[in-house]
Amino acid sequence: MTIRIVEVGPRDGLQNEAATVPTDVKVAFVDALSDTGVPEIEVSSFVSPKWVPQLADAEEVFRRIRRSAAVVYSALVPNAHGLERALAAGAEKAAVFTAASETFNRRNVNASIAESIERFRPVAEGARSAGLPLRGYVSTAFHCPYEGPIGPEAVRAVALRLLELGVDELSIGDTIGKASPPEVRRLLDVLLRDVDVGRVALHLHDTYGMAVANAIAAWEGYGVTTFDASAGGLGGCPYAKGATGNVATEDLVFVLRASGGDVAVDERAVARAALDVTRAIGRRPASRLAGVFSEANGAPRP
Amino acid sequence: MTIRIVEVGPRDGLQNEAATVPTDVKVAFVDALSDTGVPEIEVSSFVSPKWVPQLADAEEVFRRIRRSAAVVYSALVPNAHGLERALAAGAEKAAVFTAASETFNRRNVNASIAESIERFRPVAEGARSAGLPLRGYVSTAFHCPYEGPIGPEAVRAVALRLLELGVDELSIGDTIGKASPPEVRRLLDVLLRDVDVGRVALHLHDTYGMAVANAIAAWEGYGVTTFDASAGGLGGCPYAKGATGNVATEDLVFVLRASGGDVAVDERAVARAALDVTRAIGRRPASRLAGVFSEANGAPRP
Repeated sequence: MTIRIVEVGPRDGLQNEAATVPTDVKVAFVDALSDTGVPEIEVSSFVSPKWVPQLADAEEVFRRIRRSAAVVYSALVPNAHGLERALAAGAEKAAVFTAASETFNRRNVNASIAESIERFRPVAEGARSAGLPLRGYVSTAFHCPYEGPIGPEAVRAVALRLLELGVDELSIGDTIGKASPPEVRRLLDVLLRDVDVGRVALHLHDTYGMAVANAIAAWEGYGVTTFDASAGGLGGCPYAKGATGNVATEDLVFVLRASGGDVAVDERAVARAALDVTRAIGRRPASRLAGVFSEANGAPRP
Repeated sequence: MTIRIVEVGPRDGLQNEAATVPTDVKVAFVDALSDTGVPEIEVSSFVSPKWVPQLADAEEVFRRIRRSAAVVYSALVPNAHGLERALAAGAEKAAVFTAASETFNRRNVNASIAESIERFRPVAEGARSAGLPLRGYVSTAFHCPYEGPIGPEAVRAVALRLLELGVDELSIGDTIGKASPPEVRRLLDVLLRDVDVGRVALHLHDTYGMAVANAIAAWEGYGVTTFDASAGGLGGCPYAKGATGNVATEDLVFVLRASGGDVAVDERAVARAALDVTRAIGRRPASRLAGVFSEANGAPRP
């Protein structure tokens, strides 16, 4: 079964970087990623610039990137206005976001889970009329920084409501990276009773170094084949300063292929893109592969 | 089942660091590790200083470390002379080393596998007379930088010869970090037909980010409970410059406990030891936990 990597570095990754990233760097990053074989890139977010100033240049990034026919360029949208902006910018897929933890959702978007899902109704209708596929993020699906462990039933309830609303794909997020392989299995045991595995993406963060083991558990044990990842493990965690972000695309591709998975992504090209974007923002990639390939360590450029 | 972590940072880790490490730093590192709950620390190596100048101070380190009754302080020995030095220094366990790849063994110690095992005969006898437990490393047990993939039968053959010789424990090494979970299973399927799992330690390197997933596969699937690890992921890989070294003790402890394992190691104390020793040698730990805990990132000291 082919594994689908959704590259979220330009959005989830850069949004959580401490440094402000120039638009030129973002465009070059997306363009480099377009040549790596990833089938989908989350380019930016059409939330209010007041909320996420790091992504205030969403329109400009969408306008300036080079589009590959082999890649779906998606965007996060918080509401109907965000969807309008995304459509005008030529986004090819939209994503809405809620949490499995009430407290987290309230602190994040100042609404209950039910309220935030209600806000997505016009987004789902608009996306459908425009023929745009819709993804629904369910964050804090395992642990919440405020509530602690989140039960699988809570995640299932949110997931089912999003599917009823018309979401095509769910992205189940380990927002603070605290899930372990048994917890991933516990959730999938419950979630996949009602949800087709082909609609489920796992969005793993590597805060505590468990993301790769979790992906292997989900893929080998449950046939999950869609994984979100960010080149170089870009991003951080607002709840653990100094922590790494999403699982690194190049490391995830490497382990899945080494484990027998069919992954048509060039991990060296991803590592190269990660080395370039992190150099531009003054830090180093968090991935193991970028370490192996890094020029800075005397190794040849991948 | 209690998980046993063998901390190999002071030996395998520091031996492969580019920087020369002052004896004071090594002693402080071992002393810090003695308070973390790890039951065994590989302190140094009594190989010829001509081969491994980084560990030429083995006697001095052994003399100066503070000994905890809860910790076994072990040393690598290449031959009978090395064992004499180790005994004189008060090592409490000895380890011999060979490879599963003929080419690797020839390039590493200039002898065939059979010849190097023959050299261990007097070491095994000496250790037995002295009442010292003996460990046998089998490196390149999955992949060899010269030969490529190594078959499980080759590893089994070397393992059985070491056991015949009187080795109490085998440490099966993924020297270049290229093993994937299915490869770990393939080897254990063969090896554990003849070898009690209680005698098997896994020695995983995180070169490509697969070490944690491999440990989980071995522990969950086969009941392997002994794992080598180095604080901060110290060490490197002579075959991949810029690569990380052994799996980081603190990350391994975290994932095993989060997965339900009984691990009496304080991962914060390990991360602290890793932050101190890497600061002293001018780099940063490769572990995810040290990132979370790092002062340098504004987070409180663990």
